[in-house]
Amino acid sequence: MAANGCKGRLLSLLDYRTEKYIVAKNKTVGVLYRLIQLSIIGYIIGWVFLSKKGYQEKDEAIQSTVITKLKGVSVTNTTESGLLMWGPEDYVIPPQGEAVLFVVTNFLETPNQKLGYCAESPKVLDGLCQQDGDCEEGKLVVSGHGLMSGRCLHRDENAPGTCEIFGWCPVERKFKPQSLLTNAENVTIYIKNFIHFPKFKFSKSNILETTDVSYLKCRYDEKLHPYCPIFRLGDITARAGYNFNDMATFGGSIGIQIQWDCDLDKGYSECHPQYTFTRQDITASNTIATGFNFRHARYFKNSAGESYRSLYKFYGVRFNIMVNGKAGMFNIVPTAISVGSGLALMGVGVFLCDMILLYILKNGTAYRQRKFEGSQQTPENQSGILVL
Amino acid sequence: MAANGCKGRLLSLLDYRTEKYIVAKNKTVGVLYRLIQLSIIGYIIGWVFLSKKGYQEKDEAIQSTVITKLKGVSVTNTTESGLLMWGPEDYVIPPQGEAVLFVVTNFLETPNQKLGYCAESPKVLDGLCQQDGDCEEGKLVVSGHGLMSGRCLHRDENAPGTCEIFGWCPVERKFKPQSLLTNAENVTIYIKNFIHFPKFKFSKSNILETTDVSYLKCRYDEKLHPYCPIFRLGDITARAGYNFNDMATFGGSIGIQIQWDCDLDKGYSECHPQYTFTRQDITASNTIATGFNFRHARYFKNSAGESYRSLYKFYGVRFNIMVNGKAGMFNIVPTAISVGSGLALMGVGVFLCDMILLYILKNGTAYRQRKFEGSQQTPENQSGILVL
Amino acid sequence: MAANGCKGRLLSLLDYRTEKYIVAKNKTVGVLYRLIQLSIIGYIIGWVFLSKKGYQEKDEAIQSTVITKLKGVSVTNTTESGLLMWGPEDYVIPPQGEAVLFVVTNFLETPNQKLGYCAESPKVLDGLCQQDGDCEEGKLVVSGHGLMSGRCLHRDENAPGTCEIFGWCPVERKFKPQSLLTNAENVTIYIKNFIHFPKFKFSKSNILETTDVSYLKCRYDEKLHPYCPIFRLGDITARAGYNFNDMATFGGSIGIQIQWDCDLDKGYSECHPQYTFTRQDITASNTIATGFNFRHARYFKNSAGESYRSLYKFYGVRFNIMVNGKAGMFNIVPTAISVGSGLALMGVGVFLCDMILLYILKNGTAYRQRKFEGSQQTPENQSGILVL
Repeated sequence: MAANGCKGRLLSLLDYRTEKYIVAKNKTVGVLYRLIQLSIIGYIIGWVFLSKKGYQEKDEAIQSTVITKLKGVSVTNTTESGLLMWGPEDYVIPPQGEAVLFVVTNFLETPNQKLGYCAESPKVLDGLCQQDGDCEEGKLVVSGHGLMSGRCLHRDENAPGTCEIFGWCPVERKFKPQSLLTNAENVTIYIKNFIHFPKFKFSKSNILETTDVSYLKCRYDEKLHPYCPIFRLGDITARAGYNFNDMATFGGSIGIQIQWDCDLDKGYSECHPQYTFTRQDITASNTIATGFNFRHARYFKNSAGESYRSLYKFYGVRFNIMVNGKAGMFNIVPTAISVGSGLALMGVGVFLCDMILLYILKNGTAYRQRKFEGSQQTPENQSGILVL
Repeated sequence: MAANGCKGRLLSLLDYRTEKYIVAKNKTVGVLYRLIQLSIIGYIIGWVFLSKKGYQEKDEAIQSTVITKLKGVSVTNTTESGLLMWGPEDYVIPPQGEAVLFVVTNFLETPNQKLGYCAESPKVLDGLCQQDGDCEEGKLVVSGHGLMSGRCLHRDENAPGTCEIFGWCPVERKFKPQSLLTNAENVTIYIKNFIHFPKFKFSKSNILETTDVSYLKCRYDEKLHPYCPIFRLGDITARAGYNFNDMATFGGSIGIQIQWDCDLDKGYSECHPQYTFTRQDITASNTIATGFNFRHARYFKNSAGESYRSLYKFYGVRFNIMVNGKAGMFNIVPTAISVGSGLALMGVGVFLCDMILLYILKNGTAYRQRKFEGSQQTPENQSGILVL
Repeated sequence: MAANGCKGRLLSLLDYRTEKYIVAKNKTVGVLYRLIQLSIIGYIIGWVFLSKKGYQEKDEAIQSTVITKLKGVSVTNTTESGLLMWGPEDYVIPPQGEAVLFVVTNFLETPNQKLGYCAESPKVLDGLCQQDGDCEEGKLVVSGHGLMSGRCLHRDENAPGTCEIFGWCPVERKFKPQSLLTNAENVTIYIKNFIHFPKFKFSKSNILETTDVSYLKCRYDEKLHPYCPIFRLGDITARAGYNFNDMATFGGSIGIQIQWDCDLDKGYSECHPQYTFTRQDITASNTIATGFNFRHARYFKNSAGESYRSLYKFYGVRFNIMVNGKAGMFNIVPTAISVGSGLALMGVGVFLCDMILLYILKNGTAYRQRKFEGSQQTPENQSGILVL
């Protein structure tokens, strides 16, 4: 008897239970409910699946290696330095092919500086003086170039003077932007970019897999050569919306973004790099943060073993190659989350239609009585607020 | 007739069907169910929407460019090198304004090294010897400085010796930490950071958009000048919890984190950088990984064309500017996922209350009979375990 | 009376309403429904929770600092440069311990270049000429080394000549790969990696927290010393599947990936770095993008103050240390989303079973009549297509 009851209970587990529905022959609510259903299905299919690819697992942790190589020569002719040839070993800093690189376009050389005593630059406010007392001996000039010796130097008796300092002398003179590197806009940059998506163990490069040597004689062009990894510097700045020669005098910063947007369900060949170019040192209006320069010193020793140096103030364009990307591949978890949460939204529609049917329409009380099968049929019982 | 039937079927599609409910006038389960409903609604509104902003699409793939520029002079006075002035072109390595930069705070110079024969440093364990046989000719000293010549050099007869090597001679002597750069804590670093969120095409910079030149005469201060991009090195280490001069002798590594947490629903001006400073070469307890130094050589040639060099062991503070950020903007997909999955959780509440009502409360059998309208009313049928 | 009605309504809010079910004693649909239930529960528990850890909030925005230090000496012996010792200050470029570093394995020196007139290299196609007219005076040689002087230089009368240029002379000769740095594969790299997960305020390092000084005398080995941060270069290339000496001649690029996969629910000590090594300059087949080299110049001045330089073409292995990681910690939001959307999927199962029961099985009409309690019992009404 107990065994029988137990078996019956187990068997009843395999009975299928389906919810009992009340049919309300009300076209208003019916049409509304079908519209809600259609829009949710439309949202799931159209927006989540087609537009956002909600059925895919995403990997946005792209790993990337960028190697750059520049080619081309440039020439300068100044009174101080004479005719100079510039190869990539000179104008690219650092020379080892990094993703962030600087190309010299203009420079100011202060040759043959030696440690010694000379007048501070009149550009340094804290170095200006009227008399020796303004220059405290042994104190560093704030934002200046050396230690004050205690003397105030005047060009002529009436003019304001500058403190004498101990430092690398002579100090850098004021900049006259004249030593532009000609031909720098024709220099080419060859960008090798290797990417890897660790979640999907997928690797690719921006260089086509070919044994055709003439391939690397190309120049990048959005339409003609979208897979060419070689770019003319003048073209890069032009694509960013600026003229190379305008940027050359005071320098600037250009971002080269390589965007990989890979749908791995479509296969290996459907994963392409896309290049975009933006100027980065200008945001909205003309701000004080534009331009790019830094100083670098080359050290020498004379035959007596004394050090002297050439100080260079380099102006130029900084290129910052940023790689960004995401890959997507079908996976059951995001599919289930997308579909499941979309279907759950139908509950909102049911709740809304129920409210309209039971409390807003005029024969709501009749529907309420049929929908809620109460233990005692009291009027209060039929109210059924907030059934959810 | 068939057409009529078809039309009827199509019309019946627009009938609204609503689930039939059994009202159980049981206050215990009723209160429990309302509490579950309230807590789920509270969770959806409070936690998901207000605290986690679950209605927003997030972009965490921030693109960032960092340009740094240091200002200030420093001075050293050692017996070997004499009085030396250090400008940013000397103490910042690399000089071109990268996001990872090293500021020299202490150094050891080994001037005038030439390729030749001399004794290996006694610090190198594999270079110690008792007799010539310990120094195998033509073998490199492991972790040492050169090729062994086969001779063992002794200072005096009884002392242990070191192998004679071919290398840059004389080898670096033991370090006495004395050549500290004075004033280095007063050096300022100007950080330009340009960010971009590709998903929302949103760009911003940490520099205020102003034409007021005096703005860049500020010093960063959390309360007084939170938008000032210029930092005193001594202040940076102090904010990280360390004294600059304590770090100066053996060096260290400081992380400067710029955090952008942008709610783009609130507009452009509500997206601010936040700076945090942490020491990175010390994790928990005092470990063996602290300090920071590296060696660098400057090469010279004498009038005979022979190479010689000055070897510098630089100790200093490495600054690593890391930019991190996320932006959020309202989007229908995450909103639907958050709301939908929250609502779906109500199913758990329904299941729980049903179980209590039908199987735990004492008049459960009566509720079971009313809830499950069976084909045949057998006792087994009424058990209805696990209706879910 | 009104107060009574209101109180009744409020009390009825605390009534529990449970859906009325029809029991269909149909084993086929019953078994199908239970199978669907079981597979959804299995998916939620097994896949979402155990495999994907869907109950965890993830932080993939790892912050990382990498400091590298190389140790070991290498030696070259060439006819031009003689016997040369190479320390880390020479063969590591840049020397300051970055995450991307280059180790020289082979080089070509062009010593004592001076600005002047000489023949363009015969490797430069645009520098070849038959007569003076082919060399336009004052024009830069495309992909060449200088400005054409207008003269065509011939070795002998019949051979094709090259244009005379103004540039750094003599130009680099053709490369004979011979000046390999011996012992470079025994150089060790010490990698310090400090990570931080900002969302969880969790920090760790790849160096064990120990005061045992002998710990840092180890060499990395997957099985014997998985927490050793010191790697032999030859081992790294071997783990990437390449022989160091094969790569040494023309260089290459190796990626060292440090993977942090941290389950923070398990505690601090359960968060380990994992190292993987891949060659990056070779993707699929043998492409034209392999190898790695760049040029660097060292500048000197003679006693007359004239500049001359040594041009080095460095071949070598570029190491790119990439840090990648994610951390997970229990959080209620992802748990709710995972469970909620999983449960919502059961609605799909209900829909499917309903369709089979009502429209596919032969006694579907009887079930339809019982399930849908219509206002008027017309045959059309009982069809109930698409109840969802």
